[in-house]
Amino acid sequence: MEKDIFCKIIAGEIPCYKIYEDADVLAFLDISQVTKGHALVVPKEHYDTFLSCPEKLMHKVMDVAQRIGQISIQFLGAKGVNILTNCYEVAGQTVKHFHVHVIPRYESHDGFELEMKSNTEGLNLPVIAETLKNNL
Amino acid sequence: MEKDIFCKIIAGEIPCYKIYEDADVLAFLDISQVTKGHALVVPKEHYDTFLSCPEKLMHKVMDVAQRIGQISIQFLGAKGVNILTNCYEVAGQTVKHFHVHVIPRYESHDGFELEMKSNTEGLNLPVIAETLKNNL
Repeated sequence: MEKDIFCKIIAGEIPCYKIYEDADVLAFLDISQVTKGHALVVPKEHYDTFLSCPEKLMHKVMDVAQRIGQISIQFLGAKGVNILTNCYEVAGQTVKHFHVHVIPRYESHDGFELEMKSNTEGLNLPVIAETLKNNL
Repeated sequence: MEKDIFCKIIAGEIPCYKIYEDADVLAFLDISQVTKGHALVVPKEHYDTFLSCPEKLMHKVMDVAQRIGQISIQFLGAKGVNILTNCYEVAGQTVKHFHVHVIPRYESHDGFELEMKSNTEGLNLPVIAETLKNNL
């Protein structure tokens, strides 16, 4: 299987603006920079999505995301941060290698536009809750 | 200080469609249901945002979010999931109590619309990366 772009970055085959690296985790600037300081945090071992990453490694990724978010506020002047991971194509995942977006926010309207519309039509909430609860 | 709505749900003062509960974490359906099964995972102890939550507790929250995401695919028929936490008002946080959205996705265009526009104009990427790196 051909390496995905993040595996290539991890292997040093493609350069990046590195923010953090240890044995398990790499963080670097997203080259698209949706906002100033937009960063990606990835596990070095390949997992397709957040959902398939082992818990302990996922924790390490989230720790680095948390720290970068804090630093973005303290040292880049961000007023807030979005922490996001998209799992599978339908959710907007473009690179099939688990990555967490850390998106510093300086104003409410910028390159990151999120609209969440409520839609409870035809939904049976007690049944949905039971389905999730009984299978956890 | 008046309790936020999630503290009231945790205290049992406001009902919810519960999905999961243990000593530290509660998960329930978001009453707005951006998509079918849209869930929220919160720490029972109050922390304003993901950024201020202690690591170990944050891990517990993320573990439950991961599990609900997996179950949404297996048992609700979702084809993907977005995992999102908004930190501070500028990032779209409406309730000031750390919460992770688990948003099952069945199609690319639905109640969850996210646009991420690249904007690198005037940004000095090496300097931004160094600023983050040197302060982590």
